[in-house]
Amino acid sequence: MRGLVIGRYQPFHNGHLEVIREIVSDSDCSSLILAIGSAQESHTLLNPFTAGERILMIDAALNEVGIKDYFLIPITDINRYAVWVSHVESLVPPIDIVYTNNSLTERLFKERNYKVKTPKLYDRDKFSGTKIRQMIIHDENWEMLVPKSVSQIIKEIDGVNRLKDLNKVI
Amino acid sequence: MRGLVIGRYQPFHNGHLEVIREIVSDSDCSSLILAIGSAQESHTLLNPFTAGERILMIDAALNEVGIKDYFLIPITDINRYAVWVSHVESLVPPIDIVYTNNSLTERLFKERNYKVKTPKLYDRDKFSGTKIRQMIIHDENWEMLVPKSVSQIIKEIDGVNRLKDLNKVI
Amino acid sequence: MRGLVIGRYQPFHNGHLEVIREIVSDSDCSSLILAIGSAQESHTLLNPFTAGERILMIDAALNEVGIKDYFLIPITDINRYAVWVSHVESLVPPIDIVYTNNSLTERLFKERNYKVKTPKLYDRDKFSGTKIRQMIIHDENWEMLVPKSVSQIIKEIDGVNRLKDLNKVI
Amino acid sequence: MRGLVIGRYQPFHNGHLEVIREIVSDSDCSSLILAIGSAQESHTLLNPFTAGERILMIDAALNEVGIKDYFLIPITDINRYAVWVSHVESLVPPIDIVYTNNSLTERLFKERNYKVKTPKLYDRDKFSGTKIRQMIIHDENWEMLVPKSVSQIIKEIDGVNRLKDLNKVI
Amino acid sequence: MRGLVIGRYQPFHNGHLEVIREIVSDSDCSSLILAIGSAQESHTLLNPFTAGERILMIDAALNEVGIKDYFLIPITDINRYAVWVSHVESLVPPIDIVYTNNSLTERLFKERNYKVKTPKLYDRDKFSGTKIRQMIIHDENWEMLVPKSVSQIIKEIDGVNRLKDLNKVI
Amino acid sequence: MRGLVIGRYQPFHNGHLEVIREIVSDSDCSSLILAIGSAQESHTLLNPFTAGERILMIDAALNEVGIKDYFLIPITDINRYAVWVSHVESLVPPIDIVYTNNSLTERLFKERNYKVKTPKLYDRDKFSGTKIRQMIIHDENWEMLVPKSVSQIIKEIDGVNRLKDLNKVI
Repeated sequence: MRGLVIGRYQPFHNGHLEVIREIVSDSDCSSLILAIGSAQESHTLLNPFTAGERILMIDAALNEVGIKDYFLIPITDINRYAVWVSHVESLVPPIDIVYTNNSLTERLFKERNYKVKTPKLYDRDKFSGTKIRQMIIHDENWEMLVPKSVSQIIKEIDGVNRLKDLNKVI
Repeated sequence: MRGLVIGRYQPFHNGHLEVIREIVSDSDCSSLILAIGSAQESHTLLNPFTAGERILMIDAALNEVGIKDYFLIPITDINRYAVWVSHVESLVPPIDIVYTNNSLTERLFKERNYKVKTPKLYDRDKFSGTKIRQMIIHDENWEMLVPKSVSQIIKEIDGVNRLKDLNKVI
Repeated sequence: MRGLVIGRYQPFHNGHLEVIREIVSDSDCSSLILAIGSAQESHTLLNPFTAGERILMIDAALNEVGIKDYFLIPITDINRYAVWVSHVESLVPPIDIVYTNNSLTERLFKERNYKVKTPKLYDRDKFSGTKIRQMIIHDENWEMLVPKSVSQIIKEIDGVNRLKDLNKVI
Repeated sequence: MRGLVIGRYQPFHNGHLEVIREIVSDSDCSSLILAIGSAQESHTLLNPFTAGERILMIDAALNEVGIKDYFLIPITDINRYAVWVSHVESLVPPIDIVYTNNSLTERLFKERNYKVKTPKLYDRDKFSGTKIRQMIIHDENWEMLVPKSVSQIIKEIDGVNRLKDLNKVI
Repeated sequence: MRGLVIGRYQPFHNGHLEVIREIVSDSDCSSLILAIGSAQESHTLLNPFTAGERILMIDAALNEVGIKDYFLIPITDINRYAVWVSHVESLVPPIDIVYTNNSLTERLFKERNYKVKTPKLYDRDKFSGTKIRQMIIHDENWEMLVPKSVSQIIKEIDGVNRLKDLNKVI
Repeated sequence: MRGLVIGRYQPFHNGHLEVIREIVSDSDCSSLILAIGSAQESHTLLNPFTAGERILMIDAALNEVGIKDYFLIPITDINRYAVWVSHVESLVPPIDIVYTNNSLTERLFKERNYKVKTPKLYDRDKFSGTKIRQMIIHDENWEMLVPKSVSQIIKEIDGVNRLKDLNKVI
C-alpha cells in the first residue's frame, strides 16, 4: 500500500515531520511517496530553495529520525488542475492512498476515485513555512522549528543570505 | 458574415444569453462563433468548470431557447497579447466582426483591422459570474440567474460541491 | 450516451464521412463529439489547414448530408501521453464511449477504463489524407474524394496554392 | 570587456539613459549589452509596448545622444530563476560584468560567479516607468521625462491611445 | 562527494546495473544520484514506461542487489541544451562528479566546469533498451537481460501488452 | 523602409554576407533587421552555436565589411505557423518588406499582406551551413567560406571542438 503526501517544503520543518511520522505509522501506508511540489520554483520569497536543495534537506531530516524506504520525487507545477492528477500519477509509483489537508488536492484526487485521508493538523501558528522564512530573514530563533540537519543545510548552501537578498527585491 | 464573441462563461448565465440574443438578431452577423476563453482553466474559484463542462452548458442553454447554427470553440489562454488575435484566428472559422465589451479585446482586434461592435450591457449587478459563484457556495437563490439547463448540468456534475470545496482552499 | 471520435482531418474526406455515418447510426452513441487533433498545427505539408478552417469544412460537410447535433472541438497536442486522456476529457463534454482505429488512442483510453469501439475501416488506399494532399499539389482529380462543401472551402481559402507553396519548402 | 544591463524599458526614460551613460563611461565596460526583459509582454498596463517597439525606442534614444556599438537584445521571461542566468547567457554575447540595482538579478549572477556592479541610482521619484505610464494616460507632462525620439515613437505607434484603452480594462 | 548518472532506463537492464555497481564502488562517489531522463515521456515505442514506473523498477532492482542510499530523480526534457545543466542542477542535490558515456552530456557538463568520468562500457550488443523492447514485443527471452524485480514489475503493470499495442501504431 | 531577413546562421558565412550586401543596396530597404531564427537552439549538429554566439559573429562580420545601422534580433521558434508572423512582428521594429528564399516564410508573410522579395541565390553548393559544419568537424578548409571574424570567434569559443564532440553523439 503506497501513500502519497505532497508539499512545497520551503523549508521542511518539524510540523511536516510530525505529519510524516503519522503517515508512516498508519497501517494503510506501507510505502511512502513524498512529492515535492512547485519543483520548478526557487529564489523567490515564497519558494527560496530549489527542488534539489529541498530533496537534500528532507532526505537528511528523515535519516536523522530513522525513517527509511520512501520515494522523494519533485513535481513541477502544471497549472491545469484538470490534468494535474494524471501529471502526478505519471511521475510517481502507483499510489493507493493520498494524505492531504488541502481541500483542492482532496477534491482532485477524489474526482479520480482515490481514497484520501486527512492527517491531524500540527500547530500551524508555530510551524509555518511563511513564518520560518520571515524568521530566517530577521535572524530570529528559527532553527528550533526545523530538524537539525535542515538548519545545517540551509546554512551550508548560503540560504540565510539568499533569503535576505530576496527580501530586498522591490 | 461570421461574428465572434468571447467569454469565460463560469457559468453561462442569463446576462450572457441576452448578449447572444442581441448578436443573433444583428444583421451584421449571420453565423455566430462562441469562443470559450481560459479553456485550460478549471477547479479554481475563478474558473470552476472545465471547457468541456462549459460547452455542455452553453449548448444546452442555446438549444433551450431555440438558437441554432453556432460554433462553440474552446480557446486556451496564450498570455502574449501580441500574438493573441492570430491564436484566436487559427482556432475559429474566418470572422468578419467581433462583439465585445472588453477594451483590451477591442484594442487588439482593432489593431488587426477588425470591425468591432459593443453589445448593449446587461445588468452587471444582477448577472455576474463572480456573484453567481458566491451564491452557489452559500446556497443562495442562484438558479434563477442562469438558464434552466445550466443549473441542471451544474448539479449533475456535482458542481455545487466542487465550488464549496474550492472555497475551503486557503 | 456521448461518443468521441478524434482525427486530424487534413482535409476531411469521404472516408471520414463514412466512419461518422457508422457512429451516428450506432445505438451506443446518441450524441457525437468530433475532436480535431493537432489543432495547433497548420501550414505544413502534413497539416496544411488551421483548426478553424477544418472546423468550417467539417461543419459544412455534415450539414451537406443532414447530420446534426454534434460537438466539433479542437484539441491541441500535449505530447505527454500519460496526461493526454485527462487533457481530452477537460475539453469535451463527458464521454461514454470512444471510437478509434488507432491502437495508441485505444490503449490510452482503455487504461482509463473507457469502452472503446473500432469502426469498420474505409478503403484506406482510396481515402487517405496524405494521398489527397499530394493529389491537390499535382492538380489530380482529388475533388471526388471529399465532400463537395470541403472542396469548395479549400478553394475559397486559397488552400490549393498554400499546399503547392508548402511543397516547395526544402 | 562586455557589460550587461537588463530592464523592461516600458518606456525607456531619462533615468535609464543616465544609467547607460554611467556604464558606457565605466572603464570595466568596453562593449554594452542592453537586454530587454519581459520581451514576450505587451498590451498590458505594466508592459504596454512590444519588444520590437522598445528596441526601436532605445535605438533611437541612444543614437540621439551619440552612443554607439551596443547590442540590443530581447529576453523573454523564463520564470524559473534557477535556470535564468543560463537563459540570458545563451541569448547574449559572452559577458564579463553585470550592472544592476535589482537584488535578485545581483544574487542570481553572483551565485554564478559573475562580477556585479551597482550603478548610481537616478531619481526614482521623478523617473519611474509606472509613473510615466500614468502620466501618459492622464495627458500629463510626460514627454520631458523621456528622450525626444522616444516620445515621437510612442506617438507614431499610437501608444498614447493604447495605454488609455488598456486603462479601461476592468 | 555526490556523483550523477543519467539515463532513460526504458527499461532498467543488467547493463545499467553494471554501470551503477562500478560508480558505487568508485572512491570519487560516496553518494549516488540517479537521474531518470525524458521523464515526461511514456506510451511510445521508444519510451514505453512512465517516470513513476521506471522509479519503481530501479528502486526494486537496486534493493535486490543491496545498493542503498541513492537519490532517484525524474528529469523532464527541456530541449534547450544551453540551459540543460542548470535545469538538472536545480532538480538534484549539489553534485561533484558526473558519470556518462554520452559525448553531449560530457560536453555540456565540461563547459560548466564539472569533473566528468566515463564508466566502462557494458556489452551494448547484449544490453540495449531498444533490443529489449523488441524482444518483449516478440515474446523472446528478454527476462534474463533485466533484474528479476524489473521483469516482475513490467508484467504487473501490463507492460508487455502495452508494448505490443504501441507496436501496432502506424 | 525597414527590411527583414531571417536565418539560422549556423554559422554566418560568405553566402549570407552576399545576400545582406544585396539587401543593403536595395532602395526598398533603408534599415535592415537581421533576425536570428531557432534562437533557443545550440549544442546540436544542426545548431551548434547559441544565439548569443551567433550575434557576436554576425556583428563582427558586418563591422568587418563596414555595414552599419542594422538590428540583430534573436527569434525563438514558436512551432505554430499560424501565429508565427505575429510572433516575429512583436520582437522586431515595424517592417515594410521581407526578404526570403524560403517558400514557407514567403507564404506566411504574404498571407499577412507583406511585400516579399526574393534575393538572388548565392552558390548553395559552395556556401552551405551543413557543409561548413561538416568541414569544421573534419578539419577541412572551411575558414575561407566564412568572414575572417567569424572563423576567429568560432575558434575563440572552442567551437571546433564542440562540433567534434557533438559529432560523436550516437
